[in-house]
Amino acid sequence: MKQIKKRWGWVLLLVVILTLAIATPALADDGGPTTQEVGDLTVGINILWMIVGGFLVFFMQAGFALVETGFTRNKNVAHTMMMNMMVFCIGAVGYWLTGFAFQFGGVNAAYPEVARLGVVAGAWAHSPITLGDWTGLLATPLIRFGQFGILGGSGFLLGGLGANAGVLAFFLFQMVFMDTAATIPTGSMAERLKFIGFVLMSLWVSMFIYPLVGGWIWGGGWLQNLGRSVGLGNGAVDFAGSGVVHMIGGAIALAGAIVIGPRTGKFNKDGSTNTIPGHSISLGVLGTIILFFGWFGFNPGSSLGFIGAFRNLAVIAAINTLMAGAAGGVAAMTYAWLFGPTKKPDPGLSVNGILAGLVAITAPCAFVDSWAAVVIGLIAGVIVCGATVLLEQWKIDDPVGAVPVHFFNGLWGVLAVGIFANGNPDTAAWNGVESAVTGLLYGGTTQILAQFAEAGSIIVFVFGLSYVFFKALAALKLLRVSRDVELQGLDLPEMGTLGYPTDWEPSDLEEGIKARPGKTAPAFGSAD
Amino acid sequence: MKQIKKRWGWVLLLVVILTLAIATPALADDGGPTTQEVGDLTVGINILWMIVGGFLVFFMQAGFALVETGFTRNKNVAHTMMMNMMVFCIGAVGYWLTGFAFQFGGVNAAYPEVARLGVVAGAWAHSPITLGDWTGLLATPLIRFGQFGILGGSGFLLGGLGANAGVLAFFLFQMVFMDTAATIPTGSMAERLKFIGFVLMSLWVSMFIYPLVGGWIWGGGWLQNLGRSVGLGNGAVDFAGSGVVHMIGGAIALAGAIVIGPRTGKFNKDGSTNTIPGHSISLGVLGTIILFFGWFGFNPGSSLGFIGAFRNLAVIAAINTLMAGAAGGVAAMTYAWLFGPTKKPDPGLSVNGILAGLVAITAPCAFVDSWAAVVIGLIAGVIVCGATVLLEQWKIDDPVGAVPVHFFNGLWGVLAVGIFANGNPDTAAWNGVESAVTGLLYGGTTQILAQFAEAGSIIVFVFGLSYVFFKALAALKLLRVSRDVELQGLDLPEMGTLGYPTDWEPSDLEEGIKARPGKTAPAFGSAD
Amino acid sequence: MKQIKKRWGWVLLLVVILTLAIATPALADDGGPTTQEVGDLTVGINILWMIVGGFLVFFMQAGFALVETGFTRNKNVAHTMMMNMMVFCIGAVGYWLTGFAFQFGGVNAAYPEVARLGVVAGAWAHSPITLGDWTGLLATPLIRFGQFGILGGSGFLLGGLGANAGVLAFFLFQMVFMDTAATIPTGSMAERLKFIGFVLMSLWVSMFIYPLVGGWIWGGGWLQNLGRSVGLGNGAVDFAGSGVVHMIGGAIALAGAIVIGPRTGKFNKDGSTNTIPGHSISLGVLGTIILFFGWFGFNPGSSLGFIGAFRNLAVIAAINTLMAGAAGGVAAMTYAWLFGPTKKPDPGLSVNGILAGLVAITAPCAFVDSWAAVVIGLIAGVIVCGATVLLEQWKIDDPVGAVPVHFFNGLWGVLAVGIFANGNPDTAAWNGVESAVTGLLYGGTTQILAQFAEAGSIIVFVFGLSYVFFKALAALKLLRVSRDVELQGLDLPEMGTLGYPTDWEPSDLEEGIKARPGKTAPAFGSAD
Repeated sequence: MKQIKKRWGWVLLLVVILTLAIATPALADDGGPTTQEVGDLTVGINILWMIVGGFLVFFMQAGFALVETGFTRNKNVAHTMMMNMMVFCIGAVGYWLTGFAFQFGGVNAAYPEVARLGVVAGAWAHSPITLGDWTGLLATPLIRFGQFGILGGSGFLLGGLGANAGVLAFFLFQMVFMDTAATIPTGSMAERLKFIGFVLMSLWVSMFIYPLVGGWIWGGGWLQNLGRSVGLGNGAVDFAGSGVVHMIGGAIALAGAIVIGPRTGKFNKDGSTNTIPGHSISLGVLGTIILFFGWFGFNPGSSLGFIGAFRNLAVIAAINTLMAGAAGGVAAMTYAWLFGPTKKPDPGLSVNGILAGLVAITAPCAFVDSWAAVVIGLIAGVIVCGATVLLEQWKIDDPVGAVPVHFFNGLWGVLAVGIFANGNPDTAAWNGVESAVTGLLYGGTTQILAQFAEAGSIIVFVFGLSYVFFKALAALKLLRVSRDVELQGLDLPEMGTLGYPTDWEPSDLEEGIKARPGKTAPAFGSAD
Repeated sequence: MKQIKKRWGWVLLLVVILTLAIATPALADDGGPTTQEVGDLTVGINILWMIVGGFLVFFMQAGFALVETGFTRNKNVAHTMMMNMMVFCIGAVGYWLTGFAFQFGGVNAAYPEVARLGVVAGAWAHSPITLGDWTGLLATPLIRFGQFGILGGSGFLLGGLGANAGVLAFFLFQMVFMDTAATIPTGSMAERLKFIGFVLMSLWVSMFIYPLVGGWIWGGGWLQNLGRSVGLGNGAVDFAGSGVVHMIGGAIALAGAIVIGPRTGKFNKDGSTNTIPGHSISLGVLGTIILFFGWFGFNPGSSLGFIGAFRNLAVIAAINTLMAGAAGGVAAMTYAWLFGPTKKPDPGLSVNGILAGLVAITAPCAFVDSWAAVVIGLIAGVIVCGATVLLEQWKIDDPVGAVPVHFFNGLWGVLAVGIFANGNPDTAAWNGVESAVTGLLYGGTTQILAQFAEAGSIIVFVFGLSYVFFKALAALKLLRVSRDVELQGLDLPEMGTLGYPTDWEPSDLEEGIKARPGKTAPAFGSAD
Repeated sequence: MKQIKKRWGWVLLLVVILTLAIATPALADDGGPTTQEVGDLTVGINILWMIVGGFLVFFMQAGFALVETGFTRNKNVAHTMMMNMMVFCIGAVGYWLTGFAFQFGGVNAAYPEVARLGVVAGAWAHSPITLGDWTGLLATPLIRFGQFGILGGSGFLLGGLGANAGVLAFFLFQMVFMDTAATIPTGSMAERLKFIGFVLMSLWVSMFIYPLVGGWIWGGGWLQNLGRSVGLGNGAVDFAGSGVVHMIGGAIALAGAIVIGPRTGKFNKDGSTNTIPGHSISLGVLGTIILFFGWFGFNPGSSLGFIGAFRNLAVIAAINTLMAGAAGGVAAMTYAWLFGPTKKPDPGLSVNGILAGLVAITAPCAFVDSWAAVVIGLIAGVIVCGATVLLEQWKIDDPVGAVPVHFFNGLWGVLAVGIFANGNPDTAAWNGVESAVTGLLYGGTTQILAQFAEAGSIIVFVFGLSYVFFKALAALKLLRVSRDVELQGLDLPEMGTLGYPTDWEPSDLEEGIKARPGKTAPAFGSAD
């Protein structure tokens, strides 16, 4: 028996070896792919998608520059173009100094996006506050000093975060979103804003007001956790920022336009209004197409990933962006053709109709069906036409329609989430969402309340604080150029160069540009 | 013995457990990556590639707008820019309403691209017709009512397809291709087309004629299955649409240019021709570079995937696109320098040479060697110069050369597949192709026949039906503006605004713009 | 015992089968993912990242065209735009004919990037020279005939490389980089360069001088292997080409500007200088934003991969590109506002400040912390202002500031690697780097020496040879247009068409354009 045992022992060993040899070839040929390798690929695709989206959003800066410059006069070209170029430069520095830390410095590794982007544990772990900490609304300070990183030191100058691809890509993506918000007010205050006032406004937006309120909705703040706090499920949900980006930018633009006052010659003493045409439809329309192009980074990129459910959200967002932008353009063109002041398919209103549709779909883009995107876009195209009339009745001068496009349609987009969100289960996986986002039409009754809270907070805090900020600038004589400078055009006095130097006769420069009305703007009525 | 058996039973169990413990560590550490995870990554990369390509194709709309506007006069700037912006908006709605259903509604889950894009089984299964059904050409109706989804209800308003990332991304990609075709005729009819006529033409292209014939070649229709039907292997093969997009768009442009007639002042009574220069080389050249940029989405993106053989096709397409576009530009510039009317390196012909090279390589881009791409591009650059002369001899006025670029070089590209395709086995994996695509130079004798069938069908059906369509518009007085409007410029009468309002003196607007010939167009001969 | 053995034999077989059945389910359900499948995904993501980056770099051509045209006069618009469009067409053909073979033809499958891009073994194996061959600097000929493929026949017309996606994508990426270098001199010689001289310069750059010196640094040449040769670790390291692209282009631009001489009217006999303003700030600023956008392909794409360490390098490069460009713009704007000739935030200097920051960060972008990127950008913004003054003192006329931006800040960027590189271990994996790139501030003392060698070589060889080349062109009367043509503007005489035909009155064309100074350039002082 001993021999048998011994012999069988060898046989068994042989069996084990044979079995192993047969069983493991697939994974034995250099080990097969590991979970880590596949995880690296997943993180790679997610970050690649987000960062390419960020590049497209960056390019929107060119679109804003052209739309604002095309729809204003050629005596202010250098000034308007420079504002739209430098807002990115100044804003990037400001957001790097404090903005990112204020908006996301308190977010730690428990933040779901962090894992998806492959952030190494600990990279974002400096802050003492975690998402799970929120036990009730009352326990949530409006301004989370912990989130600001003041205690943890996390996020200022990108310090304390490690050179982690996930964090850095997230910074890039968030920075260009902030920049979009910051560039919106340059439109509503165009043709009269002092350049130093513009510089200070850029710092105000990038370093403080956008990060503060943006953090409430995207950075784990009280609006994002509102539903949990009061036991109602989701807080405010804003996929790509109808509220965070466009309403914030639009609210600042509205406050600025009110405080700075209308351009000379816009409103007559008899209460009537003059149309002040811009100088280049070709630049304006080119800018619109660039913005539409960039929006495919803005909205689909906000899935912050492209694997699994996040890919579904991204592609749904792309289709809805396309359809809502198109529907907005068709609606505004048709409205202008039938009811507008010229009874023609007006280019300016059509441009703003497209942009209105894009702004309105930005919050709900991943949450609704394509028919809903078309409906949202059509309504946006009408809203922008109506809001343009409304602003003129209120005697608020917004040369490029920044407020009708971004504020009013940002508001429409935030609320549309609460109406049209279709309860797609994929949406529950996204940035801090607790359960599938469901609007009134699909039986969700609480989402709309959180959306109202988001909109209301932006109006109260962003509009309110910015109104005070611009009043302070005005008191310091840093806000508006003199009437002489405005009539002559801001280019030579403010920027030291003309936008189109060779368009002017030498005699123009001697006599002053204002001597040739055809070169500045068509004669307007009795200017105040 | 019983004891021995029992003992050995335990020993064997131990062996099994040990073997398992040793054999499975690699996949046992949290299970290792699954086939599903890796499949998700594959689908992710494929869709990411296609959708980013679709974004780039969208951006080509800016290129078309600038090329067409730059090479026409400044009195029609608002009109030309608006057509190129609104064709996307109107076309998107039209394609969403019926176009996608007409073109692809009959395609089901057996369609190879569907699997590659990760479409969930059943998403596209509403149609009663499958690719495998085609048993003979005679059994294939020209208009497949099943494919239209009229029976299956599939594809209209994206309904019945599910919110599937693969289907939606495919819709986006196909929609922007349709849009490219739809924008081509706005060039050949520029400076005289009524805006309402443009709107109706956009609906005609997006809702009906492009989806109909496009479905024949890409959507499993009779031209795609022609080879199988008659037992000759492949049907018509058109990688990115020299035929589907450019010949279709070019055929509509040709029909439109013929029916609408030449611009006032283009042709003299003595048979001679006037050159009517555009207003901005800088916008025209910028548009060309944008189009070239977008073509890197158009052609490489048409691999509809980036894994395995599809990556090879995509990268080959990119290189050939680059080389053919460059060669087309070099050929046309050289031709103009040596033989052109000015004996200079003419910007207009150089621009159209680049575009001609790009159009010609569009069908064969994934099927040929780089030397063949250079040859195809060089020939395209000469064709576009010759076709420009030919059209003038035929007294057809095409302000921006849409027909020489898109129709004649689309035709050249379709045929070039049958000549230069190199039989690369990777090509057999692509959209419905049966065997490696092989042209005459590599011993393939039947491919060229299918290519002739594609080209002939487009000429007969698209040109023919569009000719009737435009004749109907003309009869309804919806096609061409009045002579007065044309001379004054279409901007104020049709769009209600000037393209460059501040370029005009106030006196211009009073006297009528036509009073200053230098501002409208250089003096032309005895206008008819 | 026989029976027992037999029976136990069956039992053991059963055990093996059972074990296999239990052990392999995860990978047995259709085999599980294979290493090859995952490798295919890895290669796919790497190539996708690089090729999309290449598309963005291509688009920079539009940016160069607009910056150069916007900052020059409207009488040379067609000429300047055409140079920037055709440099790509001519350059692509030249690089395809010989350039790629000269730069990379000697690189074989041992080149690390080759494996990362999935190049099939053998595709690049024609050359007899391998990276490992370098045993000492003396053994390295300056011009490697083996590398030129003259012996191996590899790389000319993309021949001998196989239709391999990795090689072809690498060709595309490198071609657009060469093109960036080639387009830089069109700026410094704008408004006076004969078009035939431009054509020959494009061939000079694309076929010979760029590939020669570029191969030294990126293609396995002596500068890349300098450290190994002399036993000091790394050779010259240049992530995205502050030296390879920008200093090479800038050195050619400097040689060209010196040989061709200043524009008529730029310098006065009394030693003073006239400012000759460009014609369109809107085009110039638009071009700058496009360049910034494209730089996100240029720098991050130069990781040549997006998996593992290469993703870290790519994202770090993106952040640093963003921050340095922004800081450069802020610095130059502030400098101009405080110390510039107009004491205003000058658009021209701000544009060049942004570009200077981008050029300077190009070499160190993946090797430094974000605070260092800000410092590098701020210094670049000051350098560009100082270099502009310096060039004017040297009486070198560079209409768009190509030399201050690309040459001086390219130099600054090359040296900045040796100062600020932070020793991140990920950097050791990149293109031929031996050990982590470490600058003076982090204790690395030898890297700066290799960087000086790179900069010195470019100055000696590229500037020197190009100076001779332009002298030869001048001797052959192929370099500069006549004074009459220059005063009239190059558009009609050289290109046969005006840039903006409708901007000119008919009388202008009769009397000659120069008769209306306001239309050419503001009156300048006593022209020499």
